[in-house]
Amino acid sequence: MSGKIEKRLDDLGIVLPEPASPAANYVPFIISGSLVFIAGQIPFWNGDILHIGKVGAELTMEEAKKAARICGLNILAQLKIACGSDLDRVNKCVKIGVFVNCIDGFKQQPEIANGVSDLMVEVFGETGRHARFAIGTNALPRNCATEADAVFEISSN
Amino acid sequence: MSGKIEKRLDDLGIVLPEPASPAANYVPFIISGSLVFIAGQIPFWNGDILHIGKVGAELTMEEAKKAARICGLNILAQLKIACGSDLDRVNKCVKIGVFVNCIDGFKQQPEIANGVSDLMVEVFGETGRHARFAIGTNALPRNCATEADAVFEISSN
Amino acid sequence: MSGKIEKRLDDLGIVLPEPASPAANYVPFIISGSLVFIAGQIPFWNGDILHIGKVGAELTMEEAKKAARICGLNILAQLKIACGSDLDRVNKCVKIGVFVNCIDGFKQQPEIANGVSDLMVEVFGETGRHARFAIGTNALPRNCATEADAVFEISSN
Repeated sequence: MSGKIEKRLDDLGIVLPEPASPAANYVPFIISGSLVFIAGQIPFWNGDILHIGKVGAELTMEEAKKAARICGLNILAQLKIACGSDLDRVNKCVKIGVFVNCIDGFKQQPEIANGVSDLMVEVFGETGRHARFAIGTNALPRNCATEADAVFEISSN
Repeated sequence: MSGKIEKRLDDLGIVLPEPASPAANYVPFIISGSLVFIAGQIPFWNGDILHIGKVGAELTMEEAKKAARICGLNILAQLKIACGSDLDRVNKCVKIGVFVNCIDGFKQQPEIANGVSDLMVEVFGETGRHARFAIGTNALPRNCATEADAVFEISSN
Repeated sequence: MSGKIEKRLDDLGIVLPEPASPAANYVPFIISGSLVFIAGQIPFWNGDILHIGKVGAELTMEEAKKAARICGLNILAQLKIACGSDLDRVNKCVKIGVFVNCIDGFKQQPEIANGVSDLMVEVFGETGRHARFAIGTNALPRNCATEADAVFEISSN
């Protein structure tokens, strides 16, 4: 399988992480019609959580933006499985939700969420532009910096 | 009406609460095509809110997990109405979002969210496995412990 | 273009803001099938953010409810573009998510979220009733009071 998007990933030097399997009664994605709903992804990389802590306290903006990008890479790793390994089936990145672990009153969630959003446009071009929300939170699983979920539209294979 | 899922609920001794009607300009669910979008449910049981407070302060993990399960029971009560009382029409639990009222930096939202996720798999089996996000928050309606919303896929009747 | 909904907006004296364009790699809405996913909207009005701060600290309930209404007006402004200016194509308001920037333990997110919900029913009548969640958060973009995203069902033109 060596599609257009796989080639773009190669050209950009983007490596996807091993897709993690939830150790619970949920799954990394569900397909309903042409929509793929991807579960919330944290900055997990082949067994380790990178970027732990709150923006504005332990973490800088730049670190949190990297954390958001890694959430995005995990989204892509799950999406690839959802597409039967063929990312060329992705029609649209529909919606991304970004949660930022931050101190009270922190204001720059959008800049951090760009870590995910920029990745989608790097990989899919115009097709990667999506609706999005970005909010702050006082606590995330494993105290990680960011969490992101997503909805994509794919074509049938 | 005595379908397969109703029988499983009986066998498991699971009783659904009276479905609550929002006292505002929103509704408990909307059907669009084959998708049912269920409004955020709190641990409401026939008129009372059970499990008030924050995990890590007033509430233990175990209490919060029970709160999450009750959110799930309310989701099922609304879903049953959406299906015209026939839960056998449920094809898939597509997506669940879980919000946990917790102290700053609390890390175990996934364990609490399992209260909802385990319920869905008890009731629907493999069909109950879903995509999910679980995050913390500093405040929820009525200061309840958890809130959960959901998307299901149903077949036409 | 002078449809039924445009006339209702006129009759109600409701003026929509200039729809804002995100200054990043995301877009204000994505259409997938008959669903329109609207990006998170903040209380932005023609270049300025109104209603900055936290409910329970700098802001009253009433101010936050107004902020939520302005989020809703921005949702409508984006939805109008999504419908090619013809809001009569809106079949259903499917789902609204409301995030309220608030102090720890604040309990009245639903009352504030009614600012968006009431607007939808004013404008669309019964069609405007939607599934909803409302939660608190310790931080929102630009420290604004509220953020809301939405999903609508539209008919093809």
